[in-house]
Amino acid sequence: MTRVVIVGAGFAGLAAARALANRAGIEVVLLDRSNHHLFQPLLYQVATAALSPADISAPVRSILRGARNVRVLMADAQRIDLAARRVDTDAGPFDGDYLLIGAGATHAYFGHDAWEPYAPGLKTLSQATAMRARILLAFEQAERCADWVEQQAWLSFVVVGGGPTGVEMAGAIAEMSRYTLARDFRRIDPRKARVLLVEAGPRLLPSFTERSSARARRDLTALGVDVRLGAAVTGIAAGTVTLGDERLATRTVVWAAGVRASPLAQSLGVPLDRAGRVPVTAGITIAGHDCVFVTGDLAACIDPTSQRALPGVAQVAIQQGRYAAACILADRRGAPRATFRYRDKGQMATIGRQRAICEIGRLTFGGRIAWWLWLLVHIMGLTNFRSRASVLLQWGWSFFTYGRGARLIVAGKDP
Amino acid sequence: MTRVVIVGAGFAGLAAARALANRAGIEVVLLDRSNHHLFQPLLYQVATAALSPADISAPVRSILRGARNVRVLMADAQRIDLAARRVDTDAGPFDGDYLLIGAGATHAYFGHDAWEPYAPGLKTLSQATAMRARILLAFEQAERCADWVEQQAWLSFVVVGGGPTGVEMAGAIAEMSRYTLARDFRRIDPRKARVLLVEAGPRLLPSFTERSSARARRDLTALGVDVRLGAAVTGIAAGTVTLGDERLATRTVVWAAGVRASPLAQSLGVPLDRAGRVPVTAGITIAGHDCVFVTGDLAACIDPTSQRALPGVAQVAIQQGRYAAACILADRRGAPRATFRYRDKGQMATIGRQRAICEIGRLTFGGRIAWWLWLLVHIMGLTNFRSRASVLLQWGWSFFTYGRGARLIVAGKDP
Repeated sequence: MTRVVIVGAGFAGLAAARALANRAGIEVVLLDRSNHHLFQPLLYQVATAALSPADISAPVRSILRGARNVRVLMADAQRIDLAARRVDTDAGPFDGDYLLIGAGATHAYFGHDAWEPYAPGLKTLSQATAMRARILLAFEQAERCADWVEQQAWLSFVVVGGGPTGVEMAGAIAEMSRYTLARDFRRIDPRKARVLLVEAGPRLLPSFTERSSARARRDLTALGVDVRLGAAVTGIAAGTVTLGDERLATRTVVWAAGVRASPLAQSLGVPLDRAGRVPVTAGITIAGHDCVFVTGDLAACIDPTSQRALPGVAQVAIQQGRYAAACILADRRGAPRATFRYRDKGQMATIGRQRAICEIGRLTFGGRIAWWLWLLVHIMGLTNFRSRASVLLQWGWSFFTYGRGARLIVAGKDP
Repeated sequence: MTRVVIVGAGFAGLAAARALANRAGIEVVLLDRSNHHLFQPLLYQVATAALSPADISAPVRSILRGARNVRVLMADAQRIDLAARRVDTDAGPFDGDYLLIGAGATHAYFGHDAWEPYAPGLKTLSQATAMRARILLAFEQAERCADWVEQQAWLSFVVVGGGPTGVEMAGAIAEMSRYTLARDFRRIDPRKARVLLVEAGPRLLPSFTERSSARARRDLTALGVDVRLGAAVTGIAAGTVTLGDERLATRTVVWAAGVRASPLAQSLGVPLDRAGRVPVTAGITIAGHDCVFVTGDLAACIDPTSQRALPGVAQVAIQQGRYAAACILADRRGAPRATFRYRDKGQMATIGRQRAICEIGRLTFGGRIAWWLWLLVHIMGLTNFRSRASVLLQWGWSFFTYGRGARLIVAGKDP
């Protein structure tokens, strides 16, 4: 019996477990610290009250119900012993003939950890509902406020980081204030809320073409977002963000500027790259450890054509998970492993209502068609029929009413 | 301009605000400590993973968007000055010509407050998601566990209190373990989970007829619930519930045994009843204060026919809210106020799949027809079209697949 231990039920871990499901002679243990698989590409929609947490997640053990050789355990992996191929967790140790490590990433503050309480990031469902509460509460506080200066601070939103998450968050906050909340208040006018998107580099969406970057900027500006390029954040404290000489009074900051691989990587005892990722071979294993695969955001996987690390997107993780499973099956047959080749299916980002940007191969387009394609791809990417139907319903309702279905402040303890 | 201050956007407060919407010469301030109106009758479905929080709640200010004379504020009422007709909140004081106080109730432990951490109650959305996490986590812990005795403790669920909430919770937990989770685990068999419903009195659902009580007991027993009548809980501590001589090893206790009116009532300076409620006149005002209405769970409103206090159900609150609004409008016209007459539309409770109990006037029935009627009444009771469509979708999916759409463990801080 070949025993495979998978750490993390993200896109890679789930793809591998599915590919190994009900294969004779193979036994899988899938460990994750939460009980659900999260469709991270739509997490910003939970943070901006468009979707509910349950819409973009599904219980791991129900997804793998039919995979009788897969055991799912909710456990927190704490360290990995590479030589022994053993994962130590809070539920005890698990050793395997193969390990697949897909523990993902967390957001990073590049040496400014003190900024975190004022500028939370967005990687988990509880971070998303906390951010939703923060954003909605800012409008409530502004309505309560009699002091004009304080009101303006509550109505100013700063998003740090011009990658896909930052662009999507800034677009969604602007859209919420311009449409959804427009007529709901008596003292304030939510349409006058200020949304700033701050990017240190010269353009938005650096992984896209320059043309797409320009289009994203134009679309965001049309939505009323104040886009600041080449602007480095030099300080974040209670109530203020500092950009060089400029001090912005704001109560709500969203951090979308950087990620760092899970600290689990450090326990492997191999040299890591600057983002804390594990450098892998062309076969996505750790050099000298043919039976240890590292996938997704945790891996620094160099693309042979571009000589750059593959981006931290779902497609990379899914293809790596499937590839690792194929290698394990090949090993059992005594067949040679194939080499890993990433098939780039393109990239997309959405900017508010009926505006998106798509790049598929050499094809670059935006606007309404891109938005509908974005919708289709994301609906199809969801794990089960219930989620698809529910997301379609919420989106359909929002499309026609400009409403947002999950405008709930329920963070932390009871009010 | 007549100024009305409403405390609480529950069923009563919302009904009153709607009845006063856009009435000339009337200005309303509606205060609530959360931003949403909660459809409490379905809260147990959030606690048992069938629905998402957003399905049973709606933002108060979006419900009242069209009511231009109503100002909604998220504020926590801290005390009420009856003589000055002033409500002091964390957002400052609000005084009005009329007050409507519908601050609701919280659960009560009858002098055993130490039980609360082990036996949480169910009144708010965050309590519901915390309870959902507790229940789901118990199954996860049982699956992780190698020790048989400990496993049994994780698989034992005790619900304290045989009223509608207790009956519905016990039925839903049993159904979840028998159907939804049945094939999802490898080491444990969730169908063998033990669900106990403990009631100190001689029968379940004491506000229903004896025939309905007997039927509820039979239906719960058929679902595998161990119903204990005349059993008083004498102790609750970490890992155990004591019933007289019997000690039950359990990790999950649900408290559905008692409620107590909001502590806000104490600031009124009038004598309260045993449950902390404010005794009201036949016109649901405080004696000697014709312009202060008290409604819903906060009021002890004696029914002239039965000579008993009206029950803490949505219909009572809704009718009281509308009545108070009608009184205010009558006062403005100089017309006499009508007397408050509660029109009992009946009561119902559901016990798992396709089983419910209805009592409408002298008509008492159960089973499948009652369940469908229960469904219809609760769908229609929801505040907006989106919630209705979403709940219908989740229920439809659950009906055909036996699944539960919100099996999410996301309580407290990040894992």
